[in-house]
Amino acid sequence: MSDITRLETGPRMSQAVIHNGVVYLAGQVGTPGGSVTEQTQAILASIDRLLVEAGTDKTRLLTAQIWLSDIGAGFADMNAAWEAWAAKGHTPARWTGEAKLATPDYKVEIIVTAALP
Amino acid sequence: MSDITRLETGPRMSQAVIHNGVVYLAGQVGTPGGSVTEQTQAILASIDRLLVEAGTDKTRLLTAQIWLSDIGAGFADMNAAWEAWAAKGHTPARWTGEAKLATPDYKVEIIVTAALP
Amino acid sequence: MSDITRLETGPRMSQAVIHNGVVYLAGQVGTPGGSVTEQTQAILASIDRLLVEAGTDKTRLLTAQIWLSDIGAGFADMNAAWEAWAAKGHTPARWTGEAKLATPDYKVEIIVTAALP
Repeated sequence: MSDITRLETGPRMSQAVIHNGVVYLAGQVGTPGGSVTEQTQAILASIDRLLVEAGTDKTRLLTAQIWLSDIGAGFADMNAAWEAWAAKGHTPARWTGEAKLATPDYKVEIIVTAALP
Repeated sequence: MSDITRLETGPRMSQAVIHNGVVYLAGQVGTPGGSVTEQTQAILASIDRLLVEAGTDKTRLLTAQIWLSDIGAGFADMNAAWEAWAAKGHTPARWTGEAKLATPDYKVEIIVTAALP
Repeated sequence: MSDITRLETGPRMSQAVIHNGVVYLAGQVGTPGGSVTEQTQAILASIDRLLVEAGTDKTRLLTAQIWLSDIGAGFADMNAAWEAWAAKGHTPARWTGEAKLATPDYKVEIIVTAALP
């Protein structure tokens, strides 16, 4: 039996990998073509779902990195959706930058790690 | 009592999160408008301060990721400031790329992790 | 004796840092000027070599982040090389974006973490 647990494993990546009390999530994206707000909300719902599947939740986030395809246009809307979702008093170490993503239809990608209970 | 310790926690992020012997720092930026050298030095001073607050120091860095808003113009100056600061024999795994940052006034952002003693 | 092991340590970075059962690799790049496929294959060979040096292998990857200097032009070729190399059933949490790298000759950079046995 391995001490590494992988969730939703495909030929390219796993959506989550658990090791030594930490879960590492793959980069999550939203519905192509949606607004920054819609994509961010869809991403945060995916993160919630994967964290539950891993046995933890957003109050135990360690890190979050956020990439926007246009940081000038999207920073405020992403932050509004993020702050509405984040668990007060339990926010992770975070960093945000601009990067073109896998296709031009993706405006936001978020990658998080969290501790297991 | 939680096994996660968060430092300087706001609604969007914590400046540092400690779990299982590792401290994760949020992305640190310098004074808007300063040169690459000035911003890098200010960032490294912030990192020193947060590492001390977390109970560790730069000799125990694990990783460093560095983003420059113009890697062609800033790589040499950032590296000079970085190498003047880094602890000889204790340098982290590092990677560097170009990314537009939260506002155009930011030329450098550095994100590190470190082990606690 | 330190609980941190560093491999190939220079004044700027170490190529690998081991702590608490996890190895963190520095960003790996390929031969400047080669194609995306060639650079990706060279990077994956470097990763294999460093993982062996650290005492582990690609079946124990936790995370992989991939940066392409032109994601539109390089995503398919990078993924083909990646999937040919990846260990079936043991793929890491992964994310990919576009970023200009240290010099224009670099088209791909990959940063991984892995668990020790």
